[in-house]
Amino acid sequence: EARPGWIREPKGPGGPWTLVSAGLAEFFCTAAFLFIATGTVTSGCHTADTARQSGAATNELETVEPGACFLGSTNLLNIAMAFGLSIFVLVYAAASFSGGHLNPAITIAFFLARRISLVRAAVYVACQLAGAMVGSALVRAVDPLGFRAALGAANRLNSWASIGTGLGAEIILTAVFVFVVFAAVDQTRGGNSAHLPVLAPLAIGIVVFLCHLVAVPIDGCSVNPARSFGTAVVSRMWTHHWIFWVGPIVGGAAAGLLYEHAAYRAPIFGGPVE
Amino acid sequence: EARPGWIREPKGPGGPWTLVSAGLAEFFCTAAFLFIATGTVTSGCHTADTARQSGAATNELETVEPGACFLGSTNLLNIAMAFGLSIFVLVYAAASFSGGHLNPAITIAFFLARRISLVRAAVYVACQLAGAMVGSALVRAVDPLGFRAALGAANRLNSWASIGTGLGAEIILTAVFVFVVFAAVDQTRGGNSAHLPVLAPLAIGIVVFLCHLVAVPIDGCSVNPARSFGTAVVSRMWTHHWIFWVGPIVGGAAAGLLYEHAAYRAPIFGGPVE
Amino acid sequence: EARPGWIREPKGPGGPWTLVSAGLAEFFCTAAFLFIATGTVTSGCHTADTARQSGAATNELETVEPGACFLGSTNLLNIAMAFGLSIFVLVYAAASFSGGHLNPAITIAFFLARRISLVRAAVYVACQLAGAMVGSALVRAVDPLGFRAALGAANRLNSWASIGTGLGAEIILTAVFVFVVFAAVDQTRGGNSAHLPVLAPLAIGIVVFLCHLVAVPIDGCSVNPARSFGTAVVSRMWTHHWIFWVGPIVGGAAAGLLYEHAAYRAPIFGGPVE
Amino acid sequence: EARPGWIREPKGPGGPWTLVSAGLAEFFCTAAFLFIATGTVTSGCHTADTARQSGAATNELETVEPGACFLGSTNLLNIAMAFGLSIFVLVYAAASFSGGHLNPAITIAFFLARRISLVRAAVYVACQLAGAMVGSALVRAVDPLGFRAALGAANRLNSWASIGTGLGAEIILTAVFVFVVFAAVDQTRGGNSAHLPVLAPLAIGIVVFLCHLVAVPIDGCSVNPARSFGTAVVSRMWTHHWIFWVGPIVGGAAAGLLYEHAAYRAPIFGGPVE
Repeated sequence: EARPGWIREPKGPGGPWTLVSAGLAEFFCTAAFLFIATGTVTSGCHTADTARQSGAATNELETVEPGACFLGSTNLLNIAMAFGLSIFVLVYAAASFSGGHLNPAITIAFFLARRISLVRAAVYVACQLAGAMVGSALVRAVDPLGFRAALGAANRLNSWASIGTGLGAEIILTAVFVFVVFAAVDQTRGGNSAHLPVLAPLAIGIVVFLCHLVAVPIDGCSVNPARSFGTAVVSRMWTHHWIFWVGPIVGGAAAGLLYEHAAYRAPIFGGPVE
Repeated sequence: EARPGWIREPKGPGGPWTLVSAGLAEFFCTAAFLFIATGTVTSGCHTADTARQSGAATNELETVEPGACFLGSTNLLNIAMAFGLSIFVLVYAAASFSGGHLNPAITIAFFLARRISLVRAAVYVACQLAGAMVGSALVRAVDPLGFRAALGAANRLNSWASIGTGLGAEIILTAVFVFVVFAAVDQTRGGNSAHLPVLAPLAIGIVVFLCHLVAVPIDGCSVNPARSFGTAVVSRMWTHHWIFWVGPIVGGAAAGLLYEHAAYRAPIFGGPVE
Repeated sequence: EARPGWIREPKGPGGPWTLVSAGLAEFFCTAAFLFIATGTVTSGCHTADTARQSGAATNELETVEPGACFLGSTNLLNIAMAFGLSIFVLVYAAASFSGGHLNPAITIAFFLARRISLVRAAVYVACQLAGAMVGSALVRAVDPLGFRAALGAANRLNSWASIGTGLGAEIILTAVFVFVVFAAVDQTRGGNSAHLPVLAPLAIGIVVFLCHLVAVPIDGCSVNPARSFGTAVVSRMWTHHWIFWVGPIVGGAAAGLLYEHAAYRAPIFGGPVE
Repeated sequence: EARPGWIREPKGPGGPWTLVSAGLAEFFCTAAFLFIATGTVTSGCHTADTARQSGAATNELETVEPGACFLGSTNLLNIAMAFGLSIFVLVYAAASFSGGHLNPAITIAFFLARRISLVRAAVYVACQLAGAMVGSALVRAVDPLGFRAALGAANRLNSWASIGTGLGAEIILTAVFVFVVFAAVDQTRGGNSAHLPVLAPLAIGIVVFLCHLVAVPIDGCSVNPARSFGTAVVSRMWTHHWIFWVGPIVGGAAAGLLYEHAAYRAPIFGGPVE
């Protein structure tokens, strides 16, 4: 198996165009991810239950404190589904262009496992951050009132949660997330188990959904520095922002390196699932 | 690869019969789509929570203002699932008859990308519009009280939403929707990635689900002019109706043309998902 | 293609044993279906929201009128998922034993389309009815209080619904259901479209889920005479029971005959999904 | 087909390393399962609706009785999805390492069916119990307030439920669960039906979801002694604990032996799904 260099892309068919189209796919799909996922949070602020819970008479969101609508929401299931299932459909569609990372924690884990070059990793992260800003800005443009009420679904610690709670949850959840991603793209095992390649985007989307079920009440759930960065830039909400870089990158790198150096070599258990 | 003419169908086995059976499939499945999806909205008006929120004592929907039950509903998740997952099962079943468009925005995007002829596109759109009217009329026949309370789930802007909000959401969401559809039927990439053809109807259904999570609180969510047309005809509710033609067609055409002229030619990233 | 006789099974390997094991699979899986699906209804009566809505102080279901907890429930999504997704997993598991009908409306539609013999159809229906009674009796044995509060999730018309509403919904929804089932097992088309055989049990389960989203508020949703019969026997609730035989059988037979005589012969649209 | 010995592993490629890596996979994935699934329960205690229902003013969980937040929760659907879908993604990822049991009831059923050796079964169960303790301890470390309010999501009978209710539900639900697992890994049938191997982890996850829909209101739902053991150790809540060993093991063993001695040999019904 040919590995990329630490710095440069392998020479091969397609040449630099594969990097351009991959970067564009990361840009557009991360923007679409932010628009759908954080747009579900902001438009959901207008529903009767959530508006009331945020302290507004129904549909009068002007009166609520900025950010009052999001953490600890009655809409938890809707929000978790929006984040997880948009990752499913966008990884599904983007996989053949760029691998469908849409997340610097994934890209960095693949780079540390020497699956992609430093050049490719840098291009992806830059495109993901730009895409996230564009996606979040489109949400603010389309629904400014909901955006203000939810502060654009920017990540921050809920009032009851300590730094240890947020950081611990982000590290552990991203580690599980990256473990599932590495298993999903493990071609040795995938050749033996029909479910691995076919269900890959669905399993990846569902693990993102699960992270949000656990961590939306804690800190809005990041597990993705680009998602946190995009909403922070557009809502100008930087409180605790470092947690959403350190947590996902540490957890993701640990899981990626562990998978690369131990799990890829582990013997394959017989049978499709048993 | 043989392309259809701008006007006429390619000559080939099956001849005009393929167009008749495809049109019938579009008709029946669009009718089934409207019956299930808008039927979930109207029957849900009778559940205790939604009835109360619409201003009715439980089960006494006669007393609410027509249309009071739908936008900003507590049933948002149920409604989004009904629209998205009925697209999943009906595209699943209709794909081998007609491709399973069930939506003029999809059909027009395929026509502009020269994937289908003008004749086929016209037949599909006519059958979709007729099917949508029949599906909505069946809902009114079966549950007239719920239909009146929800105005047949006709699309219109919620009181808090401006034209820019509705039009922007419809354009962006339909663009993402059409991007996923074009990726799902991309046979070059599908030959390389097992998940693309197998999960195609599921990914298409889930992206419709996601559009509804975002946009039901805004305008009931269209992303499909036939769905909006059918409910408008039967409920006689034409307010803002043009938005639900312009938004989905503009967003869908932009994404379809972009995919056709750029993405189809982009090099394929190695590996099934990575 | 060899067709079964109108009366007798085709001679072949396995002989009568294939009918015994198929009947046992229908019996056990229909019992499991009723236990999971109606058990979700009855145990859900003990949750705080549903108990309160049924007129009980939390957890004191003895005080509510028998049957007060079910129709028009706040648990609508949970209930629809329990019915639909248990059909998914049980069809998934039973398909290789019996085809996984678990429903006389499906069995009768397959018989009328001459896909199974009269003998097999009779064995299946008998085993489905017996299994449904056993499943419902197990729910009553395990949770008698919840069973009484929900009258065992027996189907009946909600107070606001007329016979036309219930019968119309059952006919139309079962027709869509049977159309999806026939498309899922269409081997000619399945050979051309990878998604058809692989996703078959999921699509069938999701269409059952959708039927319940629409019709639980109307009549508890049947689309399956065995499910209605089992709960009617154990709860001794026979009001409107004929609707849940006539509706599903008429709708299913119409869709099955239409598919058999028109759709099976329709030309296949090119491409996996497009 | 080579069967393992009653005691020892079969000699073969990989040797004892296959057991080491399989045990580690069971350990890590059971820990991840407990962290995601019971972490959803504990963090959900901080959402407004659930906090209020547990007797707390919003976000002031210190004031509620330990364990007040869990059984009969308004979060029932979120909780059932967290348990079921984390089994989906972790079985998806762990299958090629260990088969993805994550549950002593599954491991014991496979041992009794002579699918794995006694040595392997003992290693798996030990790793599952250790992993469950670690996962539950991580939840307590990250969210101590939510953990106390939910007593770590430890299983116990709800106040309205008798021992017969809990034991009956655990036996029947685990039997259905194990039946689906054995069907999913049935390689004879899987060779004939494309859906069996491809959808295996999804079907297994969904059946766990369904068990939780039924039994969370009864006893928090176990169907997995390791899950119950881990939360009991960390929350020191041992009431009714024996039910969560006896119920799942009896139900799982019965279904596993029945499948092994009857169903594996049953003739295969023709066609992919029909």
